[in-house]
Amino acid sequence: MIFLRKSYLKLYICCIELFFKSVENMRTYTNVFDLGDLKTALSEAFEIKKDRYKYESLGKHKTCLLIFFNNSLRTRLSTQKAARNLGMDVIVLDVNQGAWKLETERGVVMDGDKSEHLLEAIPVMASYCDIIGVRSFARFENREDDYTEKILNQFIQYSGKPVFSMEAATGHPLQAFADLITIEEYKRKERPKVVLTWAPHPRALPQAVPNSFADFMNEADVDFVITHPHGYELDPKFVRGAKVEYDQLKAFEGADFIYAKNWACPGVTNPDDYGKILSKDMSWTVDTAHMALTNNAFFMHCLPVRRNMIVTDDVIESPTSLVIPEAANREISATVVLKRMLEAL
Amino acid sequence: MIFLRKSYLKLYICCIELFFKSVENMRTYTNVFDLGDLKTALSEAFEIKKDRYKYESLGKHKTCLLIFFNNSLRTRLSTQKAARNLGMDVIVLDVNQGAWKLETERGVVMDGDKSEHLLEAIPVMASYCDIIGVRSFARFENREDDYTEKILNQFIQYSGKPVFSMEAATGHPLQAFADLITIEEYKRKERPKVVLTWAPHPRALPQAVPNSFADFMNEADVDFVITHPHGYELDPKFVRGAKVEYDQLKAFEGADFIYAKNWACPGVTNPDDYGKILSKDMSWTVDTAHMALTNNAFFMHCLPVRRNMIVTDDVIESPTSLVIPEAANREISATVVLKRMLEAL
Amino acid sequence: MIFLRKSYLKLYICCIELFFKSVENMRTYTNVFDLGDLKTALSEAFEIKKDRYKYESLGKHKTCLLIFFNNSLRTRLSTQKAARNLGMDVIVLDVNQGAWKLETERGVVMDGDKSEHLLEAIPVMASYCDIIGVRSFARFENREDDYTEKILNQFIQYSGKPVFSMEAATGHPLQAFADLITIEEYKRKERPKVVLTWAPHPRALPQAVPNSFADFMNEADVDFVITHPHGYELDPKFVRGAKVEYDQLKAFEGADFIYAKNWACPGVTNPDDYGKILSKDMSWTVDTAHMALTNNAFFMHCLPVRRNMIVTDDVIESPTSLVIPEAANREISATVVLKRMLEAL
Repeated sequence: MIFLRKSYLKLYICCIELFFKSVENMRTYTNVFDLGDLKTALSEAFEIKKDRYKYESLGKHKTCLLIFFNNSLRTRLSTQKAARNLGMDVIVLDVNQGAWKLETERGVVMDGDKSEHLLEAIPVMASYCDIIGVRSFARFENREDDYTEKILNQFIQYSGKPVFSMEAATGHPLQAFADLITIEEYKRKERPKVVLTWAPHPRALPQAVPNSFADFMNEADVDFVITHPHGYELDPKFVRGAKVEYDQLKAFEGADFIYAKNWACPGVTNPDDYGKILSKDMSWTVDTAHMALTNNAFFMHCLPVRRNMIVTDDVIESPTSLVIPEAANREISATVVLKRMLEAL
Repeated sequence: MIFLRKSYLKLYICCIELFFKSVENMRTYTNVFDLGDLKTALSEAFEIKKDRYKYESLGKHKTCLLIFFNNSLRTRLSTQKAARNLGMDVIVLDVNQGAWKLETERGVVMDGDKSEHLLEAIPVMASYCDIIGVRSFARFENREDDYTEKILNQFIQYSGKPVFSMEAATGHPLQAFADLITIEEYKRKERPKVVLTWAPHPRALPQAVPNSFADFMNEADVDFVITHPHGYELDPKFVRGAKVEYDQLKAFEGADFIYAKNWACPGVTNPDDYGKILSKDMSWTVDTAHMALTNNAFFMHCLPVRRNMIVTDDVIESPTSLVIPEAANREISATVVLKRMLEAL
Repeated sequence: MIFLRKSYLKLYICCIELFFKSVENMRTYTNVFDLGDLKTALSEAFEIKKDRYKYESLGKHKTCLLIFFNNSLRTRLSTQKAARNLGMDVIVLDVNQGAWKLETERGVVMDGDKSEHLLEAIPVMASYCDIIGVRSFARFENREDDYTEKILNQFIQYSGKPVFSMEAATGHPLQAFADLITIEEYKRKERPKVVLTWAPHPRALPQAVPNSFADFMNEADVDFVITHPHGYELDPKFVRGAKVEYDQLKAFEGADFIYAKNWACPGVTNPDDYGKILSKDMSWTVDTAHMALTNNAFFMHCLPVRRNMIVTDDVIESPTSLVIPEAANREISATVVLKRMLEAL
């Protein structure tokens, strides 16, 4: 009798496992939908935050290859730490400062400066590892190339291994997942108002962070508003149903979280403006006057941040500034993603 | 009685172990002869390929120092992986882009740009590790310096530690061993015909790969032929008794394996031509017409490869192209070599 | 009765442990005083030298972040090895060749080339690790900045983590501790005479090594003498009660250890001379004639060394040259320091 019950129990556990298996069967991580149910993902994040080494045995004899086409501080450190939390070996490969000298076409006589074809390079790299992380920024040379995530997708298509983005041309999903974890930890009401605000910056920056933040907030249980000057409209793929408010001060009213970020023109309304700086309007800098309009909002930014361009010293140093815990959560988001990929191997 | 038999068995095993010990007492790895009996080496390779972590306990508390004077992708990744397969710690040292600013002479007043003498630098590096890998390409400045393997031999002479080549000026024995493993895996007859063919390339390349390939094939159980235009004769030290056929098409007839590679003039017949490009004859590019002459040969290349210079897209993408499994075997050849060195410590 | 004695013994051991705990409660390592009692530190060093992996379990699930603002060979290798001896994970971060593009002031509109404020950068780096090592040389731009150890102290102040120097602007305490270990190993009398001598060099070098050597020798049980040309006076903070002898030959008389090193003008007597080369007097080069005046002294230098500027070939290659064992002891000094920091976590 007891024996029978045990069998049922086993069957029941097996069903649950199969369900989670399908949720967790992660082969790529490039956007919010790769995570499946966000409540499940968040509960995994908090489980790992309580005990970072809980799944240390998962990564035994598994190697994580981190390929950097662009410089990195937070991503390099937090992703290495995450892989080690899971017991993986890590190999870091720095590809010469953004240079991707791989031929991608067939039929080309390769007598120029490209010394290898991606059809050889990617499978070879993949043959020495189990999971691949790729960092490859937007180049602003060609909107099409950036927005089709040419390089990241080459790795997905030709490596035969699970691939995760460590910030690609149009998305930074490890950052956005860390942001979501942070909002979940600090929110003071069930459905907080979250405002993504553009702010000025001296250089032209990619849209990866605001795109992914919008991507995540649209699926999270929040009241999401985007505010920016005219011409800075983000790609509809990421904005989806979000409210866009061109009056920054109005957007800030009653906000529980302010997420500031600069980005260069996404070229949605005018493709010729793609990658251009359309405004350096310093009235958009988040200062105490801006914050006074909010519901004592928390301040967030992905870092690095230009002080007194994006945000004033007072705001970023205030007790409601979350920039440091937000960055620390990068280790947690990366650990969840790598754990999922290891489980799916 | 049974007890006695066990004793005999132990003694017998002990003898076998001693025999292998002598074979495996590897202190340097620079050429085929360092491997000892190739059949034994191959059987170790296949044993490791079946279970890469089988000897994981061998490298406990041992550190492998990988010194790169030149860039590397395959070698960097595969050698790190190999060392980790064996449980070793790995420290990677990138020496500024080929700059070997070490004084090597005595009596020199070191008031110039050389800040250290090799007699200090090498023993110090060696003091923090157990095994050293060195990558240092031919410089084409001086044939004598390249062909005496000046830098590699300085490490062998002054480090007091086992040293293995991760591609030196005139040899790439980890590549050649991986090639041998690949040929053994794919051969369809006991003694296949293997052809090393020169092919055109826009830049002047060292002879390390063809030299080591010849070095290995001359000792392997294969029918070995080398083909190249006049003037490209490889050093007799590596060619040994191999057949050299100047007519490429004739060489290809009935071949089971085609190994393509470019190399610049080895300067054997005319030392003044050392490192020069004597030919860019595109009729040497390996295409389907060439392959049609063979016994449905497998195509091999060490990578990176210039498509449509060395080989056409059709040939390298064909089902008989082995370039990817060949690269993947780099992990296996490196694991065997490091295992041998660990056993000999 | 025996039970009672055991209790007393336990209490006694507990007291001893508490005493050592306080000595070992290391949160920073920048100078000799951070080590506490030198005899205890030396006995720990020799314990570790006998069994480098004795404390391997201490570093489990701990991460050591090594930040290099300047190039490094010995420090990079020996510190990584030390951390691994203790079972720590190591993450190496190379900051672009000495560039410390962090804003340090408040109120600055960051629209220039500084992309991050140290108040964000340092806590974030710290959030991914448990212990931080920093290498940051003197820049000779501003004596005040160098001698207040601006960068190192920013890490100490803002990281919230234990921080150790891997050579800072004015000190190199891991080197000096290794030097002390070496002197203790080789000394032939209870209180040897140790001479720190300036020697010529083609470039302007920081004072980190001589400063720390003086710092350590002043606390060690040695008869310590410093000799250098006029104008090269080291900072009083490090010289303390040491004897300064301007006649090099007189200083060498009866010495048991000669520690040679170049340094540029420390700017003590004339701040305008800070970082300048005041002398290239080759009569200060340590040769056999110099050494003949000593008590068959051992020769020491931290390396890298310019031969025939600092020291002749004959002296550095003589049986009493300790430069290699001295460098090898860098692994030991770093292991002791990291062990102390791990115990204090």
